[in-house]
Amino acid sequence: MIFSDTIVALATPPGVGALAIVRVAGPDAIGLVAGVFSKRNLADQPGHTLHYGTIRDPDGGALIDEVVVALYRAPRSFTREDAVEISTHGSDYVVRQLLALLLRRGARLAEAGEFTKRAFLHGALDLAQAEAVADLIAADSALSHQVALNQLRGGFSQELRTLRGRLVTFASLLELELDFGEEDVEFADRTGLRALLGEVADRVAALLRSFELGNVIKNGITVVIAGRPNAGKSTLLNALLREERAIVSAIPGTTRDFIEDEVSLDGLRFRFVDTAGLRDDPADEVEAIGVQRTRQRIGQAALLLYLFDLTELTPAQVQAEVGALTAAHPALPVLAVGNKLDLSTAGQLAGFDDFVVDGTAAVRLAAARGQGLEALQTALLARVRGAGLAGHAGATIVTNVRHARALAVAAGHLAAVRAGLDAGQGTELLAADLRHALGALGEITGEISSDDLLTSIFTQFCIGK
Amino acid sequence: MIFSDTIVALATPPGVGALAIVRVAGPDAIGLVAGVFSKRNLADQPGHTLHYGTIRDPDGGALIDEVVVALYRAPRSFTREDAVEISTHGSDYVVRQLLALLLRRGARLAEAGEFTKRAFLHGALDLAQAEAVADLIAADSALSHQVALNQLRGGFSQELRTLRGRLVTFASLLELELDFGEEDVEFADRTGLRALLGEVADRVAALLRSFELGNVIKNGITVVIAGRPNAGKSTLLNALLREERAIVSAIPGTTRDFIEDEVSLDGLRFRFVDTAGLRDDPADEVEAIGVQRTRQRIGQAALLLYLFDLTELTPAQVQAEVGALTAAHPALPVLAVGNKLDLSTAGQLAGFDDFVVDGTAAVRLAAARGQGLEALQTALLARVRGAGLAGHAGATIVTNVRHARALAVAAGHLAAVRAGLDAGQGTELLAADLRHALGALGEITGEISSDDLLTSIFTQFCIGK
Repeated sequence: MIFSDTIVALATPPGVGALAIVRVAGPDAIGLVAGVFSKRNLADQPGHTLHYGTIRDPDGGALIDEVVVALYRAPRSFTREDAVEISTHGSDYVVRQLLALLLRRGARLAEAGEFTKRAFLHGALDLAQAEAVADLIAADSALSHQVALNQLRGGFSQELRTLRGRLVTFASLLELELDFGEEDVEFADRTGLRALLGEVADRVAALLRSFELGNVIKNGITVVIAGRPNAGKSTLLNALLREERAIVSAIPGTTRDFIEDEVSLDGLRFRFVDTAGLRDDPADEVEAIGVQRTRQRIGQAALLLYLFDLTELTPAQVQAEVGALTAAHPALPVLAVGNKLDLSTAGQLAGFDDFVVDGTAAVRLAAARGQGLEALQTALLARVRGAGLAGHAGATIVTNVRHARALAVAAGHLAAVRAGLDAGQGTELLAADLRHALGALGEITGEISSDDLLTSIFTQFCIGK
Repeated sequence: MIFSDTIVALATPPGVGALAIVRVAGPDAIGLVAGVFSKRNLADQPGHTLHYGTIRDPDGGALIDEVVVALYRAPRSFTREDAVEISTHGSDYVVRQLLALLLRRGARLAEAGEFTKRAFLHGALDLAQAEAVADLIAADSALSHQVALNQLRGGFSQELRTLRGRLVTFASLLELELDFGEEDVEFADRTGLRALLGEVADRVAALLRSFELGNVIKNGITVVIAGRPNAGKSTLLNALLREERAIVSAIPGTTRDFIEDEVSLDGLRFRFVDTAGLRDDPADEVEAIGVQRTRQRIGQAALLLYLFDLTELTPAQVQAEVGALTAAHPALPVLAVGNKLDLSTAGQLAGFDDFVVDGTAAVRLAAARGQGLEALQTALLARVRGAGLAGHAGATIVTNVRHARALAVAAGHLAAVRAGLDAGQGTELLAADLRHALGALGEITGEISSDDLLTSIFTQFCIGK
């Protein structure tokens, strides 16, 4: 596919900086820039070279900037087309003037994600890799960065291609049988097919399971901090975030809004949500709404951090309150944390020796003094890993909802093929199901794609990408 | 001057974009990047070339990004040193990882303006040109952009060098006379020196005068809009800004805060300041404070736009009110603007035929309907140009306070030399004054500079520049 138009966009973030990059790609990219550049033989220069000069409007002669022009020749560029990146002084005014000039000279403003879309359509990367570009840009923790980079480098795509490749061989044999429809031949060895289906289905299921982790890596782990009023939830949150985001007050019931903030522990992003204190007799209506919303938020949590005051509650009370909070969510992992260790008497503490909630030893700390925070972080990571929410990033991890959906569709069709084999189903039905499974897998990398799909993917990109 | 350390910084604005550029400069720039880059023979590549590859931490092997590396070899780079620009995916996370890696490998984080400072110290540009880089980045109108670019391209520096060069010849002759101190010889022709001094002083005075315009170009023209309550000031401001920035209300006295916004007309930036309505009997204390602040703001204006209601006031009342407002500022240019043209009767309008305020025809318009705005813009530009606040950008225009101060010092010393010549002063005093004048002119381009001066200039730059 060759595009006839040349597109242009600012590729660096808007705002004031030392440099800004305006990107131009398409058949006329080099000629277009050469027409406004001081080095008139720019169009004769080899690719992968840099050229210093000035950009001037040939109509009127207004000087726009001193720039460095980076020249790329097809197919050795991001989009596989001729391309130029113009490095200007980082002024919005200069960038606006330069964009306006290039538009007047015949370029078109790029749509969101259009450079990456062209790269995909020219085979520079597949769809999963293109999507990884956006993930990489948005990555904000070590793991999300690593997973996006692995996907960008084709790790996930390679795995899918292997799976598809193995199925394709069998699919072709089945299709061949259809061509000989009347003759009742079996080119495809049914036993071999059954074994292969099992392997592929297992791998697809594993990828689907990795999505839960992938989602956590991409979007963070939501930890809801709940507990009685004045147990020290805001203090703990502040200590974790090492800054004063929550209003800390000695008056019970201070926190009525949900305060969210994020902290990265061991490459994983935790989103902590502080909640209104939970008490049975809320003092006023606002407080009552707060408690109700706390219960809602617990429903969305990946982990409940139940904070209690060691000087206030007994182990039995803690167990009872945790039980009440998680009654509606029996599978929700809980980490119990006893606060105010520094104010507790030996007698109060004795009851909490070897205290276990939800199968996990409770953590004891003094949030106001920052004491015991490391133990809490260790326990959080262990709890999350134990719940299967964190793994090693070496394996392929699915982070994209679209990919997870396609995998689920593929899994369904693979199961149908298997059931068909068991039931001795005719070749036609088997072949159709196998084709659907292959289609679903192919959609992930874009081997099979539609205009609508491409549009919905690339319009989520920023302009200039 | 050769720096032994290699500096690194993000050169593009922070935030999410398609690309980010990390800039590395110094003797080890290429070796340092080659040590973490996939193309191992990077250090053997020629300058002004582009290289695609991956950046990986050699300790631990973590992949950081797929990048394009731009290679510059001394002296063909911005700082005249070996330099590398690494174009990464526009993710803050990736940039942080890359910067951290380069710092671990021996680079140092660049100080604000350090790249430009090195460019200056290596003679790539003089001080006035270096300052123009910052001006160019901040430029936000056609004229400020043009003036900064002219200064960056050395227009101003060239003019100063010419002036200095002519004085230097005479200064050397005077110094020579001093060497023959006892012999009372005159190598320097006093008549020629006097003529030359006159020419140079005239040019310095012209440059000094251009600073008023330069300041306007760089910082915009402050236009204070004043008038009676409900004359339509906020409506006019909104019409000028083409957006609803001010709260428009039918209740007189709505605007108590000053609303500033800017609009670019014919390459000049106008900053419009809306004010509280001026009335003699302010309804309440807040209003009274507003009126007092209006009077203060008029003192800071470059132009007073007096807005009145054509259906409310007589020409005599308008003249009286303008007179009262500008009593403390007799030199302040005024443009009178009659509003509510659409609501006025023929009788009301008749009185304002050929109505002139402060020597300028009053504008008549209907702000609420957007009628007459073009005439207002034309009148504004004419009024500003008439007051000497706008000229042609072809001539050298001084925009920098530091330069204006140095020119004023030079002018003082040149005047002293002239006075000394007239008084038949001895060579020693003449030579000293001439030396001071040369010093002041030399400070502008940095031919004469101190560490303090350089520090105060470059710390105003952003990091990465």
